[in-house]
Amino acid sequence: MTAPTITPTVTPTITSTSASKTIPIAPIAEVPTRLEYPGFDFNITARDPDSEGRCGVLTTPHGSLETPAFIFCATKAALRVATIDQAKAEATQIILANTYHLLLQPGADVVERLGGLHKMTGWQGPMLTDSGGYQVFSMAHGGVSEDIKGKRPRFGTSRLKVTEEGAQFRSYVDGTKFTLTPESAMQVQRQLAPDLVVVLDECTAFKDSRDYTARSMQRTHRWANRSLAAFATQHDGRQAVYGVLQGGVYEDLRRESAEYISQLPTFGLAVGGCLGKDPEELAEIANYSMRFLRRDRPIHFLGVGGIADIFAGVGVGMDTFDCVVPTRLARHGGALIKQAPLFRLNLHNACHRGVPEPIDPACPCYTCRTHSRGYLHHLFKADELLGMTLLTLHNIRFMNDLMTSIRVAIRAGKLAALKREWLG
Amino acid sequence: MTAPTITPTVTPTITSTSASKTIPIAPIAEVPTRLEYPGFDFNITARDPDSEGRCGVLTTPHGSLETPAFIFCATKAALRVATIDQAKAEATQIILANTYHLLLQPGADVVERLGGLHKMTGWQGPMLTDSGGYQVFSMAHGGVSEDIKGKRPRFGTSRLKVTEEGAQFRSYVDGTKFTLTPESAMQVQRQLAPDLVVVLDECTAFKDSRDYTARSMQRTHRWANRSLAAFATQHDGRQAVYGVLQGGVYEDLRRESAEYISQLPTFGLAVGGCLGKDPEELAEIANYSMRFLRRDRPIHFLGVGGIADIFAGVGVGMDTFDCVVPTRLARHGGALIKQAPLFRLNLHNACHRGVPEPIDPACPCYTCRTHSRGYLHHLFKADELLGMTLLTLHNIRFMNDLMTSIRVAIRAGKLAALKREWLG
Repeated sequence: MTAPTITPTVTPTITSTSASKTIPIAPIAEVPTRLEYPGFDFNITARDPDSEGRCGVLTTPHGSLETPAFIFCATKAALRVATIDQAKAEATQIILANTYHLLLQPGADVVERLGGLHKMTGWQGPMLTDSGGYQVFSMAHGGVSEDIKGKRPRFGTSRLKVTEEGAQFRSYVDGTKFTLTPESAMQVQRQLAPDLVVVLDECTAFKDSRDYTARSMQRTHRWANRSLAAFATQHDGRQAVYGVLQGGVYEDLRRESAEYISQLPTFGLAVGGCLGKDPEELAEIANYSMRFLRRDRPIHFLGVGGIADIFAGVGVGMDTFDCVVPTRLARHGGALIKQAPLFRLNLHNACHRGVPEPIDPACPCYTCRTHSRGYLHHLFKADELLGMTLLTLHNIRFMNDLMTSIRVAIRAGKLAALKREWLG
Repeated sequence: MTAPTITPTVTPTITSTSASKTIPIAPIAEVPTRLEYPGFDFNITARDPDSEGRCGVLTTPHGSLETPAFIFCATKAALRVATIDQAKAEATQIILANTYHLLLQPGADVVERLGGLHKMTGWQGPMLTDSGGYQVFSMAHGGVSEDIKGKRPRFGTSRLKVTEEGAQFRSYVDGTKFTLTPESAMQVQRQLAPDLVVVLDECTAFKDSRDYTARSMQRTHRWANRSLAAFATQHDGRQAVYGVLQGGVYEDLRRESAEYISQLPTFGLAVGGCLGKDPEELAEIANYSMRFLRRDRPIHFLGVGGIADIFAGVGVGMDTFDCVVPTRLARHGGALIKQAPLFRLNLHNACHRGVPEPIDPACPCYTCRTHSRGYLHHLFKADELLGMTLLTLHNIRFMNDLMTSIRVAIRAGKLAALKREWLG
């Protein structure tokens, strides 16, 4: 795709074809049928002959990135224990921040007053924010999201209510009531000012019934329309929007959602929602999600960062991935290594005591160039926070180098061989 | 002083002139009367006309530093939340590590196996270790030292016993009994392998009586002899040793200690011990400690890092300073600023919310070049560890720039003007 203009192939509809009942939504007049993204572009530059895998260049007003790429999570506008320059030195192309967290703290108005996320964080490259939906719902499901692992919320985890209007919830910071609507999600992301924004969706859980998943998916579609309508009113070329595909573990719902989302005038597409109970199911869902999704847009696999999962996603044509695991693992003493099936080394283990070798002598990261496993082990035993920083840098480089080798393999038509080399 | 050889002007004596009783000590035969430090040098390059202030160049096998200089504390062989390269980028010349902490964790043998402190930490510049004595005694006095602020010890803080032999104490890590003797302190520092090492001393407290302070000082002198004897047996030119002056708040004891320590064949001299209850008393003690100390050696002011205290020390001829405060303050949200009398900004304060200006627009540190006060405030409110790192970098640069401006002032003969500019 060379033209930055996205024209939907079908006029967006606002009723669902699913069996569940249709709820009245915002008037059709508000939903744009065509949106242009002049400062953005997505070019597919190479294709793997044996799979749907592809290389591309995704361009934003803050520069380009080569895909497939990994997006690192600066949840609260910080990579936790690494500076922006350290992440950049480890070949990072793109980062994301979470609308939900920033909405609560410091607030979108404060980020706006500080000049938006780029100015505030010092990150000058491409940046994405999610819509906030995932965190609202994951917190309602009992706390799988990052913040409540790191810090028990003082004000409970329950979502108050999900209505057609949006989601009401309480702040884990100070108990304040918030309502996140498709419109406010877009407004907040406008204030945060990343390059790439995401429509509000509801992320259903594995335990949700087929019926609930279907009804939620339809609401997500209606929310997508309302998100786009809100986006269009503020669109000035500085941001491009991603639609989100839902449908849980149900093949027909995934198809319905893929077809629906594909016809909306978004710049990119994101595959979200419940991806099953194991890597096999995830690969299957990724596969049938992608089968009916249009392929000329950049496609993001939301919250996915396992090595096998990335290979599964790349193989069916996904372009970007994000997950907190590489950086969170680092803070818990885990270093990523090229060794299936766990791909990790626990630096807390006594076997690293006094070992003068680095995590990986071939790794070009700052940590492997500078420090031994014995030193890292000491830092974790002595509760020195530097250990977290050093492993974060290693894990960032590890993910970036993995994505580089995937791009090289696709260009050489050797993705299958690379996958075997990694996964056995 | 241009010759690296240090020849004592008086043959070391091993009895004290103080009124307190003399305790038998190690045979005189073991105490060296002359030690050479071929890889080390200390040259005085400029003198302030109105004070004892001086500039110098202190050379070690790992490079030179310009004095007056600040030594940053990498207590457990880590600058807590900053990498060695980040500290270097903020103009750091020299760091220190604490023998006491490293003896307990990971153990001197592990540091040795990892190639010594330089190799282990990646720091390639000049490095000092203390003798461990300060921590042993400060923990006995109820926990003023850094570690027990950061983390309550699991195994109590009491020193078990101080005898002529040395100090017995329990590890706060696992309860193991340790005995630190003048000989073992030198042996451990040999294994840690910094450039500059310090003899074992007892650091007396403000509450200690004159009688105890005097007896302790005499023991410290005997320990200095034993430390030097132990140092001489392993001396191969890679390390140079500092003697320590004690004597508490008592002018006559300080004089006695200064005269005693001055005649020992150490490379450098350190002023330690209780420095009174306020900055005025500290300045007074610094003054009469220095009056009888030989001036041709580099002189270190142990544990001193307050702005006024540094000016007091520089004014009486001290060359290096160390203190955990600049980096510890950073971890608690405090940024150093040029504003008497507190010289600090608390980034936790709500007044920094949304403020787009950096801590100091004129500061060349990474943090001030990259981030606003509003961002730093957000990081501390959101418990993001990056805030600690960013303030650490600022405070390191602040101290290094303060020392640079002191050196510039001494060379220009304007130390008094600079002091007025800072302290009013």
